[in-house]
Amino acid sequence: MKRLLAIILVFISVCTMYGQDSIKIKTQVRKTIDELQEFVAIPNDALNSDDIDTNILWLRNKFNARGFNTSILETEGLPLFFAALPMDDNKPTILFYMHFDGQSVDPSKWNQKDPYVLSLKSNKDGKWEEESFGDLNDDINYDWRLFGRSTSDDKGPIVMLLNTIDLLKEDNINLPFNIKVILDSEEEKSSKPLPKAVQEYRELLMADFLIINDGPVHPSGLPTVVYGCRGITTMSLTTFGPVKPQHSGHYGNYAPNPGFILSQLLASLKDSEGRVIIPGYYDGISLDQTTQNILKSVPDDDSAIKQRLQFKSADKVGSYYQESLQYPSLNLRGLGSGWVGDEARTIVPATATAELDLRLVPESDGERLKNLVKEYIKNQGFYITDSEPTEQQRMNNEKIIMITEGSVTDAFRTDLNNPYGDFIVKTLKDQFQQDVVQIRTMGGTVPISPFVNELKIPAFLVPLVNPDNNQHSPNENLKIGQIAYGIKTFYALLSTPFSD
Amino acid sequence: MKRLLAIILVFISVCTMYGQDSIKIKTQVRKTIDELQEFVAIPNDALNSDDIDTNILWLRNKFNARGFNTSILETEGLPLFFAALPMDDNKPTILFYMHFDGQSVDPSKWNQKDPYVLSLKSNKDGKWEEESFGDLNDDINYDWRLFGRSTSDDKGPIVMLLNTIDLLKEDNINLPFNIKVILDSEEEKSSKPLPKAVQEYRELLMADFLIINDGPVHPSGLPTVVYGCRGITTMSLTTFGPVKPQHSGHYGNYAPNPGFILSQLLASLKDSEGRVIIPGYYDGISLDQTTQNILKSVPDDDSAIKQRLQFKSADKVGSYYQESLQYPSLNLRGLGSGWVGDEARTIVPATATAELDLRLVPESDGERLKNLVKEYIKNQGFYITDSEPTEQQRMNNEKIIMITEGSVTDAFRTDLNNPYGDFIVKTLKDQFQQDVVQIRTMGGTVPISPFVNELKIPAFLVPLVNPDNNQHSPNENLKIGQIAYGIKTFYALLSTPFSD
Repeated sequence: MKRLLAIILVFISVCTMYGQDSIKIKTQVRKTIDELQEFVAIPNDALNSDDIDTNILWLRNKFNARGFNTSILETEGLPLFFAALPMDDNKPTILFYMHFDGQSVDPSKWNQKDPYVLSLKSNKDGKWEEESFGDLNDDINYDWRLFGRSTSDDKGPIVMLLNTIDLLKEDNINLPFNIKVILDSEEEKSSKPLPKAVQEYRELLMADFLIINDGPVHPSGLPTVVYGCRGITTMSLTTFGPVKPQHSGHYGNYAPNPGFILSQLLASLKDSEGRVIIPGYYDGISLDQTTQNILKSVPDDDSAIKQRLQFKSADKVGSYYQESLQYPSLNLRGLGSGWVGDEARTIVPATATAELDLRLVPESDGERLKNLVKEYIKNQGFYITDSEPTEQQRMNNEKIIMITEGSVTDAFRTDLNNPYGDFIVKTLKDQFQQDVVQIRTMGGTVPISPFVNELKIPAFLVPLVNPDNNQHSPNENLKIGQIAYGIKTFYALLSTPFSD
Repeated sequence: MKRLLAIILVFISVCTMYGQDSIKIKTQVRKTIDELQEFVAIPNDALNSDDIDTNILWLRNKFNARGFNTSILETEGLPLFFAALPMDDNKPTILFYMHFDGQSVDPSKWNQKDPYVLSLKSNKDGKWEEESFGDLNDDINYDWRLFGRSTSDDKGPIVMLLNTIDLLKEDNINLPFNIKVILDSEEEKSSKPLPKAVQEYRELLMADFLIINDGPVHPSGLPTVVYGCRGITTMSLTTFGPVKPQHSGHYGNYAPNPGFILSQLLASLKDSEGRVIIPGYYDGISLDQTTQNILKSVPDDDSAIKQRLQFKSADKVGSYYQESLQYPSLNLRGLGSGWVGDEARTIVPATATAELDLRLVPESDGERLKNLVKEYIKNQGFYITDSEPTEQQRMNNEKIIMITEGSVTDAFRTDLNNPYGDFIVKTLKDQFQQDVVQIRTMGGTVPISPFVNELKIPAFLVPLVNPDNNQHSPNENLKIGQIAYGIKTFYALLSTPFSD
């Protein structure tokens, strides 16, 4: 009976919410702005533990006021904030993940005095101009934006959730889920304590599925669900010529040139269309027709990407953008030997270095890929060392390479057929009456991957903010329309009953 | 009759001069040190024209005092100093070239207060310790050294010549040659005005052959004659990826990587043993048996070079060190893309740059070689531009490369069979009773190459100073024994009659 009532209520609100937003939503957006102003005003530099403590106090008050039980979870690093509404064993449990720490700010690079003082701006002929918050009281312009650190990443989404809870209460919705919230304090510092925290607080954090409200929606602006992210590891390769740089007149044609040795090695790693030719590098990856269909349904405009980045043809690892992200990459992020430009000197350099980053997918274990690369290099006759070669090593080996390796952050990916995924997609589709962009694998790496893998529950990114939010940069901002989008997203997810 | 007398006198002095040096030589070495002390005390920074003027005044006095007619030759740059002894049309003419400008000094990097105050030092257990000039009055230790800017490069040799003239006069030698001396004021700045000065002052400078007393003797310490030097030109190659650096997660596997494109190009330029595989690159070079014999007679120790520079195998352009210098080089002096080391960032870089220097031999015209390289790159499907590519060029071409070129300094080489060369070699051999090291081609480039090529007379480097003289660096020095060597070399050359 309660369930039926909930369904009816949801139906009514959905009807009133899309198209022209209801007064109710606009009022809640207005309240969200005020609360976000308060929250942004508390500096949250991830490097400053005092900042983190002050933010946690604010969060505790705000979540307690909404009836959450809250805990401050001590970790090896800074504490995490945890909140949960009273549990009902008959309901499935959602764990929400967001973070409240922010990147450091350099006020001189912002177009406002204080990045921690929320600034309201409208765009006039391509220029952002300050507006008065009082003007929001009559009507709210969804194109205006709120500028300040963490407006989008992630303080905005946190306050959207709090205000959605208020609205759900106001509407007397009996929530069909248990709700847990874990708020990270070190996301901008790679969330190092998180995976261990899972081991310590597994019971507390356990849920049926995880929703991560971090990052922006697809550039199309459509509702977006992301099922996974690539992982990352790095390798640094250094080849050797003479022990010290030598005069290129005296030793050009005689002393081996480390740059040519390195170029010949690098050239052997990929074909001319960007595909890695190391045997086994792409092993284990297969994209069936259903997967291909979902990848192709993403409304990317490959020719617009090429136009924007100004190149004629993309690498051919995948035959289109989304497909390319389903494979591990082998990216040459840096090259260095001697000097270039005005500083170039006529020398045979002593060393040449290539910096590689390998983006990983779940099929591509980082250690396995690095071993494949090393095996391939060894088979080309290189003597491999992990430190500067000794004189004896130099004299005994034609080709020497120093390889150092970075740590591995694994990829994560939830199955596209997961019932909670289906639930989220259908709920968003019904709520917004728009296609939902389903991203199987986001190209970048999120620091919470190890956390997700450790939790071992289905995980979905449900981003809420605008793609052009200047995340991590000066003039970070949140489009007011996205606040409405966030509230409606949370409202729909937390009021629609789940059925398998 | 006069000629016979000269021959007898030379015979006598040669007999007394090798082995234990005569008192006469030692006295002249002592005088040379005093005069060098005076000359070094005049700062000679090539970048400071006042310095150059003061040096010229000193030179004018000193050469006039020895009976030379002197001129200050105005050029497009700083003036040159010219001196000549009264001419006799029946004698062949030697033109000596040296330079009196020096590299700038940073006193903080020298082990003496003032690099322009000559410092006398002896080596005690590997450490250089200051000695008093007074101690030279009793006996001269040939292992002691004089430290100061331009002691070796080239003020020392200039003062050696002046003091040899004194000795020749004292010995009443009727010189078998006319003597001209051209002293450069911009050698450390690449001697740019020199070639044009030849056009303007051709009559004044004309001689039968040119002797250049610059640079050090062969590392073996044996008397050395050098017949040529390699030239040089440069090329800078830049390949392009996305128009701005991109996040390697979002665009790794998609945006083309400029570093891989560049590596594949560079790898195609040489085989795995360092030989250029661009068709025609080594055209025109042939080394007959006589040449090979002279190259092989140079007492290099290839395995010692490898041990010192710490590599197992040298490039195979030549089969040994001297042979490798007879060919043009294609040296990768610098590589740059993105960042390496601690600064490495996870990006797909926008560009990758290779800096090349091409050392030239007389058979290898610099423009011809650069055109061969460009043609080879073009045949690999590159669109070549000499400036940043436009958006349209980027969108129309798969592979784009920006190539910029440096100017060409030609090589020079005098025939190994030249009669004046034979004369110099025989004279040194007789004087020192040692094998003379004959270097067909020095690997490095001297700025006077264009001057030599413009003069169109046989030219020989007859170096006088020790190989470990720290030329261009802090603690430049001249071994006192090399002063005796220089005086004896000039004495023999200027007192031995030439016969074809």
